[in-house]
Amino acid sequence: MSSSSFADALLSPRAIALVGASGDARKNTARPLRFMRKHGYTGAIYSINAVRADILGERAYPSLAALPGPVDHVFIMIPGDGVAALLPECAQAGARVVTVYSDGFGETGPDGLARQAELVRQAHELGLRLLGPNSIGLADLHSGGILSVNAAFEADTLLPGSISLVSQSGSMMGSLLSRAAARGFGFAKSVSVGNESDISVGEVLDALVDDPDTKVILLFLETLRQAPTLARALGRARAAGKPVIAYKLGRSELGDALAQSHTGALAGNDAAVDAFMQAHGVMRVQHLETLFEIAPLAARYARGPRRAVAPDEAVARVAVITTTGGGAATVVDNLGLRGLAAVAPPPEFVREIAEHGLKIRETPVIDLTLAATSAQYKMLLEALLQADWCDAVLSVVGSSAQFHPGLAVQPLLEAGKPAGKPLAVFLAPEAPESLALLQQGGIAAFRTPEACADALAVFFAPESLPPAPGEPAPWPDGLPRSGMLSEYQAGALFRSLGVPVVQGRLLAPGRLDHDVPYPVVAKVCSRDLAHKTELGAVRVGIRDAQAFETAVREMLDAVRQHAPQAAVDGVLVQPMEHRLIELILGYRHDPLVGPTVLLGAGGIAAELAPDYALRLAPVGLDEARRMILEVRQTRLVRGFRGLPEGDCEALAATIVAFSRLALTAGAHVEEAEINPLFVRADGVVAVDGLVRLA
Amino acid sequence: MSSSSFADALLSPRAIALVGASGDARKNTARPLRFMRKHGYTGAIYSINAVRADILGERAYPSLAALPGPVDHVFIMIPGDGVAALLPECAQAGARVVTVYSDGFGETGPDGLARQAELVRQAHELGLRLLGPNSIGLADLHSGGILSVNAAFEADTLLPGSISLVSQSGSMMGSLLSRAAARGFGFAKSVSVGNESDISVGEVLDALVDDPDTKVILLFLETLRQAPTLARALGRARAAGKPVIAYKLGRSELGDALAQSHTGALAGNDAAVDAFMQAHGVMRVQHLETLFEIAPLAARYARGPRRAVAPDEAVARVAVITTTGGGAATVVDNLGLRGLAAVAPPPEFVREIAEHGLKIRETPVIDLTLAATSAQYKMLLEALLQADWCDAVLSVVGSSAQFHPGLAVQPLLEAGKPAGKPLAVFLAPEAPESLALLQQGGIAAFRTPEACADALAVFFAPESLPPAPGEPAPWPDGLPRSGMLSEYQAGALFRSLGVPVVQGRLLAPGRLDHDVPYPVVAKVCSRDLAHKTELGAVRVGIRDAQAFETAVREMLDAVRQHAPQAAVDGVLVQPMEHRLIELILGYRHDPLVGPTVLLGAGGIAAELAPDYALRLAPVGLDEARRMILEVRQTRLVRGFRGLPEGDCEALAATIVAFSRLALTAGAHVEEAEINPLFVRADGVVAVDGLVRLA
Repeated sequence: MSSSSFADALLSPRAIALVGASGDARKNTARPLRFMRKHGYTGAIYSINAVRADILGERAYPSLAALPGPVDHVFIMIPGDGVAALLPECAQAGARVVTVYSDGFGETGPDGLARQAELVRQAHELGLRLLGPNSIGLADLHSGGILSVNAAFEADTLLPGSISLVSQSGSMMGSLLSRAAARGFGFAKSVSVGNESDISVGEVLDALVDDPDTKVILLFLETLRQAPTLARALGRARAAGKPVIAYKLGRSELGDALAQSHTGALAGNDAAVDAFMQAHGVMRVQHLETLFEIAPLAARYARGPRRAVAPDEAVARVAVITTTGGGAATVVDNLGLRGLAAVAPPPEFVREIAEHGLKIRETPVIDLTLAATSAQYKMLLEALLQADWCDAVLSVVGSSAQFHPGLAVQPLLEAGKPAGKPLAVFLAPEAPESLALLQQGGIAAFRTPEACADALAVFFAPESLPPAPGEPAPWPDGLPRSGMLSEYQAGALFRSLGVPVVQGRLLAPGRLDHDVPYPVVAKVCSRDLAHKTELGAVRVGIRDAQAFETAVREMLDAVRQHAPQAAVDGVLVQPMEHRLIELILGYRHDPLVGPTVLLGAGGIAAELAPDYALRLAPVGLDEARRMILEVRQTRLVRGFRGLPEGDCEALAATIVAFSRLALTAGAHVEEAEINPLFVRADGVVAVDGLVRLA
Repeated sequence: MSSSSFADALLSPRAIALVGASGDARKNTARPLRFMRKHGYTGAIYSINAVRADILGERAYPSLAALPGPVDHVFIMIPGDGVAALLPECAQAGARVVTVYSDGFGETGPDGLARQAELVRQAHELGLRLLGPNSIGLADLHSGGILSVNAAFEADTLLPGSISLVSQSGSMMGSLLSRAAARGFGFAKSVSVGNESDISVGEVLDALVDDPDTKVILLFLETLRQAPTLARALGRARAAGKPVIAYKLGRSELGDALAQSHTGALAGNDAAVDAFMQAHGVMRVQHLETLFEIAPLAARYARGPRRAVAPDEAVARVAVITTTGGGAATVVDNLGLRGLAAVAPPPEFVREIAEHGLKIRETPVIDLTLAATSAQYKMLLEALLQADWCDAVLSVVGSSAQFHPGLAVQPLLEAGKPAGKPLAVFLAPEAPESLALLQQGGIAAFRTPEACADALAVFFAPESLPPAPGEPAPWPDGLPRSGMLSEYQAGALFRSLGVPVVQGRLLAPGRLDHDVPYPVVAKVCSRDLAHKTELGAVRVGIRDAQAFETAVREMLDAVRQHAPQAAVDGVLVQPMEHRLIELILGYRHDPLVGPTVLLGAGGIAAELAPDYALRLAPVGLDEARRMILEVRQTRLVRGFRGLPEGDCEALAATIVAFSRLALTAGAHVEEAEINPLFVRADGVVAVDGLVRLA
């Protein structure tokens, strides 16, 4: 066995076997050898070909067993049905990692998934790790170690750099590399994870955190697999100061469904994935090219601690300097759509600049079209980058970027740039030379106003805290540990976590005397009735004992008739509660990211337009307070037009308590809901709820 | 005077004077002469220079008066304060159009606006029309007639084509031309309208409708001026089959405010501008580059009559064919965000294709990565373009677009393309050659997935009917013709148009007997009380005559105390009305686009999230019905979860009636509102309203 570490064997192998290497230069499978020779790889390369002893003028071997020395990484390019038989030889040859280009596995359906699982099992038995199958391969652009059939490496020279890319789509890996290369972005590593059967995005990311050539990590994602591994790696990336940027498909339901069917992924909730990314510091871009265009911004500037932002307040204040008012407006308009504001310089700043001989106005875009020399531009830019009235500086360059590239970008390159204040540049005309100069200078420069605004918005987007697993919450005695809980049981569970639940009495159907003061609510209590209201098993506003008896009789009749199989525990009597607004608290063990908690608007209006905040669970108090701010409906109890204010602190504490469903020991909660949760001036109260256990 | 028409003098002048032409080749003002010589303009060019008799080797003239022959267009490049004095000479030289590059007019503030107005007055007296001031000029790329200082024309060769561009931003004109030129898009005319003091975008558009070289018209807009002229020109463009595409700043409030301050424009409502564009067939794109990238789509395919779309139904069904699943998903995800759907081929289509030897699956993206030959690709593409189960076809091309441009786009170029079914192409990798080949072939090809989705979304976006001015609505006798109307008067006006208004009695404060059955609503009626509720001048649910008297006394006291100047007409008594939902009907004479009507959600929820539909007024019944579908709140009375249905036909008729405020003769309604409008199972009723007259 080779002595290299897993990370080295994966990303920087020193001895490589290419199984299925073709001697026909036109074939894909001839590429890895040619690429590595072209780009100066200095490690050992062994081509394996069952019938040819010569591949592209080099010696080939009939099998892995025939190799003269050990390898640490095998790249397999033969038809899928031959892969499994090769694994023992891979292990004997010393390999730690096997990358499988071959397809015909998980991406083809259930049978392929079974073959894939068996392949992984076998690999693990042999001490091997698998990248793929269906991986287009990986590349180290610094060493020329290119275990990939991707035509993107056909170029005569590669541009090594400090960005690394991990992609769940092989074809998009090439597309992104070609787009970035055309703009002069250098890369360190690029990895296609294929079906991610064994080595996941998280493990590759983890290896990249330790890669000295990698400063920024880009992810092209269709789904999310092995979230705990990814979360750990993201924590390490954050600690190492290596920003992680992601483009993930599935912002629309259509795209989400497509990504799932395309990848055979589990059906997760894209909002949950968003919460995961927010909690683990991933910057999720919306525009494809922002993925790499944002890299200099992310690499150069730390995202400071986020200010708590009041509703309607701008997420960040951007100072804008331009030689094209219309061009600047194209970015500013998009900034506005994303919650950022262009801010006018204050009078004292205008005076300060005037003392340096430049007249500017107190307008949100500082237009220097005719007025300024290059030195003045630089002076103003440096003053803006030092100013405390803005969080970032945007420079929008007009036609000079096209016709005088050197001159146009000179002040941008030469200005002193403090670490704390991001600078972004948009070039209004077609100006590839200026873009390249800025890129070489490490300045974030954008080709479209939309991507420019996207990058600034993403850079300043709110982050949340990762879930902090606390003490396990013991499972209340006497509650079932699987299946549905009845409302009464759900209430007991919620109460055990610290959620205020309406006080109710569970009465046997034959014994209806109780001490709950009228008017009351009565409900049939059963683990088998998820939709009580629709079944006629809920009555509200019952005014006296006689009406109560009638209501109970009618409800039980209705249940007997419409849900004869339901086991009835009894009748639940609760006092009528008052409220200012009603909300929903939801909990779901998301198949992709795990425990999540949701606060949403209640009532029927909520069904007309989405209005919710979602986080990984459990959450702390600060995070709960931010969730409250995010839900529009809560404005009605936060000092809106003279309406009475609600007890938002009690609400926050309740969110925290409810989110501890993630910590329950003794049973696994799949889904839970409090609907409605009443918010009052003096506290909150859960009025109805359900729980589904695994 | 020259014999050319206004349109010819504007767009295709045959004799030109350049006032302020410089002999210093480095100066902007030397450019027009150089550009025209370089690009082969064959008309007469006269340079005017007060001190030099020789400009760039050609004869110059000391003044317009010294010219040997007439001109039809003068381009003025001298400092702004000298422009006015030149106008008489321009007229004497035979010019019909004067383009003013000089600045220092409307864009500088109130004084400049006054100078500008005076300049226009003087020009009109002399029979001259003005383009500008502050116009970077205009160009005819077919004739080389370039009356512009725009460096974009510095190129050695121009690419004449069939797209014309009208821009309110001079610098963005150059930026757009450079971006389009880099992609091989040919242009016919480009016109910078500058401050639009006289000749507006609408008049330029009108001239372009008659320009045989122009097939598609692009607008870069910061605001909207002279809407009626523009509306007429848009009607002519539509009749001539020349699509008009606009990028307009101001989608965000921030961008809107900026465009207004930047241009000195009136503060209009961007939603009203949207309604104007929708009504007049303008395709408004959201992404800058879509503006020209969409041109082939718009030029080649007529936008068919829009299907009425149910809520949650896709606006258009797109068939997707690709060689990169990930790349296709980047577009499809964005399509989903814009309300379009990728649709899977039905079984019979799959069978039909199988008969031609190609196996495809019933998935929303038809992935041909490995399977198909070029001939099969073309066969499938042609079948899709003929299929009736999709409205458009999207082809997403992978790495072959980069490495084998000819081969990759060949089936796209060669496939027979019926007129009715739009084809759009996105190239996933950096592939400028393929983009250029498709462009030359007249196929809409996009560089980013976002622009591609934007173009398809815009192409299929709903259109509305232009307002059809009907019979004037007579002003009811006895109503004031200026200022505010009282609620009682507003009710009379609304009723005269056919709006059902709650029946009320106006009582003198001293005589409170009435025949409205209790419970009733009582309000103080005054033209001076716009915010009755806040003043305590409204009481609801009054149960009997005694409570009524008390309520009236208290209300009148409150008004006397808090609004002592208010002239009180009396007390309005109305029956309590019931409702399923409450809506708002609004009318506004928008300063940019004129009369508009709005249907919105009522109540407090509406203040938390926008929920409205807006149209130019007056509207017809069909348009009113579509407005109802657009307002989410109305779902509650359109068969939602078993809730009772509302009388949507009565609602539609009421919208139509209310929108006839645009037709009132005898007074000018600036603003009006019915809030709330109650929707019931049997009709609708306006419960409160206000009207502000000019």
